[in-house]
Amino acid sequence: MNVLPVTGLPEIREGDDLAAMTAERVELEDGDVLVVAQKVVSKAEGRVVRLEEIEPSERALELANDDDPRRTEAILREAAEIVRIRPPLLIVQTRHGFTCASAGVDASNAPEPGMLVLLPLDPDASAARIRDRVREHTGKTVGVVVSDSFGRPWRMGTTDVAIGSAGIRVLEDLRGTKDRIGYELRSTQIAIADELAGAAQLVMGKADGIPVAVIRGLDVAGDGAAVELVMPPERDLFR
Amino acid sequence: MNVLPVTGLPEIREGDDLAAMTAERVELEDGDVLVVAQKVVSKAEGRVVRLEEIEPSERALELANDDDPRRTEAILREAAEIVRIRPPLLIVQTRHGFTCASAGVDASNAPEPGMLVLLPLDPDASAARIRDRVREHTGKTVGVVVSDSFGRPWRMGTTDVAIGSAGIRVLEDLRGTKDRIGYELRSTQIAIADELAGAAQLVMGKADGIPVAVIRGLDVAGDGAAVELVMPPERDLFR
Repeated sequence: MNVLPVTGLPEIREGDDLAAMTAERVELEDGDVLVVAQKVVSKAEGRVVRLEEIEPSERALELANDDDPRRTEAILREAAEIVRIRPPLLIVQTRHGFTCASAGVDASNAPEPGMLVLLPLDPDASAARIRDRVREHTGKTVGVVVSDSFGRPWRMGTTDVAIGSAGIRVLEDLRGTKDRIGYELRSTQIAIADELAGAAQLVMGKADGIPVAVIRGLDVAGDGAAVELVMPPERDLFR
Repeated sequence: MNVLPVTGLPEIREGDDLAAMTAERVELEDGDVLVVAQKVVSKAEGRVVRLEEIEPSERALELANDDDPRRTEAILREAAEIVRIRPPLLIVQTRHGFTCASAGVDASNAPEPGMLVLLPLDPDASAARIRDRVREHTGKTVGVVVSDSFGRPWRMGTTDVAIGSAGIRVLEDLRGTKDRIGYELRSTQIAIADELAGAAQLVMGKADGIPVAVIRGLDVAGDGAAVELVMPPERDLFR
């Protein structure tokens, strides 16, 4: 497996064609997986807001502590449910079903100071659009993962995970397969979409501005959507 | 970045020299990171128990449901604290501080039927020993990650994470660095050891019996230990 950073991309603006811009910089092959950082997908889709256009609610003022209450308001608007609060930290479930800090709302790498970048409205659809555009542009059939950096309970640091995907298996289901001594693996599903996102992060850096990587040499083609990674509430012991 | 599966390793037995066995199968280079599956580290260290030698306690009988109470007993013995119970599922904090299902106790890929494999007593020390042995054997300075498959709250499927490490940075600390528009990244630490473990899993498979992978082409040398990934209780919102 090879993980290739896609270098030389300019600052991404609304309307930019990420598929074409990537294909111009790396010779894509059938079976490649493009991992695209959420930040540039959101910027290409115009999912940014200006702080000055946000009127904080009472609730936002209450939870913001020393943070900007307009930012807290933006988070509350993106949240379907609040999972934990330690002001100004909000861990929420987004409308997509993902549980993460700040609903993915972030000021870093925004187009301009005073702007916040929001998660795409439908990251699986974003991934599918990029996949379709790659096919139109190059004739190649690739997989696409839209990635974001999420914290996790119990462990320090973030890892990149998949919030959108197209053309890949998202969960590798090994239930029913047997190990070398004939023991049946009982409940093993591997979140390969998340591992692809994490692998790509290793070559992307964060402040470096490498928002796209290509993973080559794996057979992960399929038709999974990243929403499959959302644990159903009845299975969830940590809500 | 290149991720190379190390193929052709035999079934691992107690006392096996994983470093030498790997170095015989792949030409290691300075700066490589060896990711070694916990299962083979534990087997090489003799961290296995026979079910028939375990006497289940009252508590194990109570929690086992339709599972083998001797297995539940093995889990309870490895646990420092029980985090969640949904019998027979136990999510515990291990003595190392890691929070995971079944304290990492697992019957799959055990040396023989009727055996359970436990986590290494000190996975960071295991990683350091493998690293030292690679240096003795080849003269090369590598990093080592001992990996295991952990589930996570809110998301389906497992991803491989680091439970031991030597010779690498475990957390990449970006606090204080600035993005392109001068916005300071405030609290960003990236758990690169976990992303390395996940990347390696993509070439390892699970039933395939490829327990070691080599990651090449990254500059991640450092002196982090995987215990740094354990979130201190006072920061933990999910205990």
